[in-house]
Amino acid sequence: MKRYELYYWPGIQGRGEFVRLALELAGADYLDVARGRGGVGAMQRLMDAGSAQRPFAPPFLRCGRQLVAQTANILLFLGPRLELASAQEAARLRVHQLQLTLMDFVLEAHDTHHPVGAGLYYEEQKREAKRRAADFRAQRTPKFLAYFESLAEANRGWLGGRRLSYADLSMFQVLAGLRYAFPRAMRSIEPAHPHLSALHERVAALPRIAAYLESKRRIPFNEQGIFRHYPELDGPAG
Amino acid sequence: MKRYELYYWPGIQGRGEFVRLALELAGADYLDVARGRGGVGAMQRLMDAGSAQRPFAPPFLRCGRQLVAQTANILLFLGPRLELASAQEAARLRVHQLQLTLMDFVLEAHDTHHPVGAGLYYEEQKREAKRRAADFRAQRTPKFLAYFESLAEANRGWLGGRRLSYADLSMFQVLAGLRYAFPRAMRSIEPAHPHLSALHERVAALPRIAAYLESKRRIPFNEQGIFRHYPELDGPAG
Repeated sequence: MKRYELYYWPGIQGRGEFVRLALELAGADYLDVARGRGGVGAMQRLMDAGSAQRPFAPPFLRCGRQLVAQTANILLFLGPRLELASAQEAARLRVHQLQLTLMDFVLEAHDTHHPVGAGLYYEEQKREAKRRAADFRAQRTPKFLAYFESLAEANRGWLGGRRLSYADLSMFQVLAGLRYAFPRAMRSIEPAHPHLSALHERVAALPRIAAYLESKRRIPFNEQGIFRHYPELDGPAG
Repeated sequence: MKRYELYYWPGIQGRGEFVRLALELAGADYLDVARGRGGVGAMQRLMDAGSAQRPFAPPFLRCGRQLVAQTANILLFLGPRLELASAQEAARLRVHQLQLTLMDFVLEAHDTHHPVGAGLYYEEQKREAKRRAADFRAQRTPKFLAYFESLAEANRGWLGGRRLSYADLSMFQVLAGLRYAFPRAMRSIEPAHPHLSALHERVAALPRIAAYLESKRRIPFNEQGIFRHYPELDGPAG
């Protein structure tokens, strides 16, 4: 089996976590480069390189001579290799479509605390964040969750079909992140989405995922990541 | 050649335009469904259907029995079929990676006028929009443009390599949109990006694209789309 090198910021789950979960469930041989000796410098060097294929931003994955960036694109690449998506094109595109929709949801969750600019501190945009978070809880979260709930129900458990795919791991991560960041909102809205709660439990109980979540490799949620718990941004959903 | 059915909002270029440009350059046989007799109702019915593959949002594309959603995913599907991307996996993923980065840029351009919520009117978030647009002009636009300029330079004209790909059509569209929405910002920053300006001119001069841009099929930019010209949001870049 090939060795994968994952490049991502070392102190947060962030977008790297969607890739980590797939690598962990597959038992893949991977190195989380920026958390090792090379540190962030090794990652920065690949981004600064004058190469015509340099990535715009982390995460990115190196496998042999191939360098793949953009979270959903990395999972598109890994899917058939880790047996977490079909190699058949139509099915592969369907799972990728789910992943892209999940990434849209993730970005909106991020923007609740950074509605003005990712380069500014949260403290510089708290007023705007309160309005954006209220809209996210009232409008966006119910819309996204209802969509994924209907897929989990129609497919009897998993989002993309009869078999687990990397999109289910990402759905697990989104639910975990929302529970961390918006506990009040999730307490009010999650009971109406039983198939998603069940999906979360099933993923968490997969032996390799359970072991990973207990390990030091799983970075705890924190207020530098995508899902941040700021009580002033939380409240009822829907 | 197969017939493609594109589903997108009829009154705006929006995300549908990235797909339209690819179909137009390829001379593909396609129907812009919601602009025809079926109207928006035909589109809405596919989104409301209880199907396990229903899309979350437009645009989506139907080809035979296959329904593909998410703009970048539609182009991933179309790329080899329209000869606008290699069928070889590594090259196909590289072009897709560019497209995903362009879509990130597009969303940020959209959020300059909708930083609080897509469901609210611009007039309800003008104050937040001013701050977000200032950050977009000062920080984000220079960062994205510098990235794509370096790729166009390294690859001698096109973003993804020696041959034109659908990502070049999307880059053209992003530049056209930015010029429309932020003319002052673009006048100040575009001269430092000569390879992107050249790419824009080369795409606009492709005979099928030139004919399309002159036709009634090309919806003009307007203030319901992604790229909106609000003078109060424009100003110097960088």
